[in-house]
Amino acid sequence: MQIARVIGSTIATIKDPKVKGAKLLLCAPTDASGREVIGGAFAAVDVVDAGVGDQVLVCHGSAARQTPVTKDAPVDSVIMAVLDSLHVDGETVFRKGRD
Amino acid sequence: MQIARVIGSTIATIKDPKVKGAKLLLCAPTDASGREVIGGAFAAVDVVDAGVGDQVLVCHGSAARQTPVTKDAPVDSVIMAVLDSLHVDGETVFRKGRD
Amino acid sequence: MQIARVIGSTIATIKDPKVKGAKLLLCAPTDASGREVIGGAFAAVDVVDAGVGDQVLVCHGSAARQTPVTKDAPVDSVIMAVLDSLHVDGETVFRKGRD
Amino acid sequence: MQIARVIGSTIATIKDPKVKGAKLLLCAPTDASGREVIGGAFAAVDVVDAGVGDQVLVCHGSAARQTPVTKDAPVDSVIMAVLDSLHVDGETVFRKGRD
Amino acid sequence: MQIARVIGSTIATIKDPKVKGAKLLLCAPTDASGREVIGGAFAAVDVVDAGVGDQVLVCHGSAARQTPVTKDAPVDSVIMAVLDSLHVDGETVFRKGRD
Repeated sequence: MQIARVIGSTIATIKDPKVKGAKLLLCAPTDASGREVIGGAFAAVDVVDAGVGDQVLVCHGSAARQTPVTKDAPVDSVIMAVLDSLHVDGETVFRKGRD
Repeated sequence: MQIARVIGSTIATIKDPKVKGAKLLLCAPTDASGREVIGGAFAAVDVVDAGVGDQVLVCHGSAARQTPVTKDAPVDSVIMAVLDSLHVDGETVFRKGRD
Repeated sequence: MQIARVIGSTIATIKDPKVKGAKLLLCAPTDASGREVIGGAFAAVDVVDAGVGDQVLVCHGSAARQTPVTKDAPVDSVIMAVLDSLHVDGETVFRKGRD
Repeated sequence: MQIARVIGSTIATIKDPKVKGAKLLLCAPTDASGREVIGGAFAAVDVVDAGVGDQVLVCHGSAARQTPVTKDAPVDSVIMAVLDSLHVDGETVFRKGRD
Repeated sequence: MQIARVIGSTIATIKDPKVKGAKLLLCAPTDASGREVIGGAFAAVDVVDAGVGDQVLVCHGSAARQTPVTKDAPVDSVIMAVLDSLHVDGETVFRKGRD
């Protein structure tokens, strides 16, 4: 799963009927510390009530359809976890609410 | 889902029978503001009546077959939403018709 | 779908039984004009009788198995359209037989 | 399968119900020798009892759901092997416990 | 399918039960001539009795599970052909045993 930060939201009146009820957030891939953005922004369906500023895990591909909200929908990215902390070599590199 | 702009259209007389009726548009991946192109152009099936200049969301992979138009077809990219606006950190970074 | 040009052919006596009858062509990803190669060459199964020099659309992933030739085969790329022309912002950026 | 090193762990209280019991480790893609990191860190479900410092193989995409732990879950990366050694051109480029 | 060269082998005592019998080789993506490595090494299941030094085709993703050896296994890369030769613009850019 990709490490990313929720950076914003999307508004789209015209969309596939199967995603009408889905909450589509904007995410930016980051390094493990959450400090550095390492790729372009993308949209993902949120199934864990994430909010802007949250550090999250995103799964891509067919995995993104393995939730009740996204089942059989044209959706290839879903936020499936909100991170509390990340630990590398015994050190806490990310902790929610730290910054 | 990838953020992209519809930049053009394709004409292909010879194609797989299952995509005969599909509208294939040319898209360019952009940043969230829609101002900067960040990757090479690609073709995607349009299921939301998008037009050239629209900022859209594209899903790739098996997700692209989760629409009536693309079901069981050799298609790996579909435009599944037309964006009205994108919001990052409380700021509107993209709004349809702005430019 | 990826925009690519057919640049050559492959010969492989030893291959998975399910791809024995498939025609495997060499492709190079290009920009929309077909003039600039933008990635490394790859092999794709041809289901539209494409030839060397043709500008084509290639789909990747499970989409590549959605044809009678590639069904249930270990194949992840298929040429599913031969391009006649590509149009960007009202301009014809590619036309078959132009060059 | 991608060659990677387990570099840490993740804590996420809020996550999709289907991944509640899964152990999510942090991985960094490396070269075959395990000495050089060649990409950004990501999270993967561990099904082989890997530990921090282990050199492992990770599969991505729908392959990651082909285990009892990850079946039907929104998971796109799974650690499916712990490497003992890697051999290139008759030379052992990686051996567990070497460094 | 990706063009790659078999560069070595892997030993992994601890692995998912479904890949116990599989032969896992190390591959490096190359250009069409087989002379230049263009990406990082990865592991793939061999189903065509390939050997070190062979120039091969590798399929990724769910395609990699379309063989008797890899069916339903957590495997995302399989060697499905051993190349005899590659031809670009009427020129033989690769021939087995040439070098």
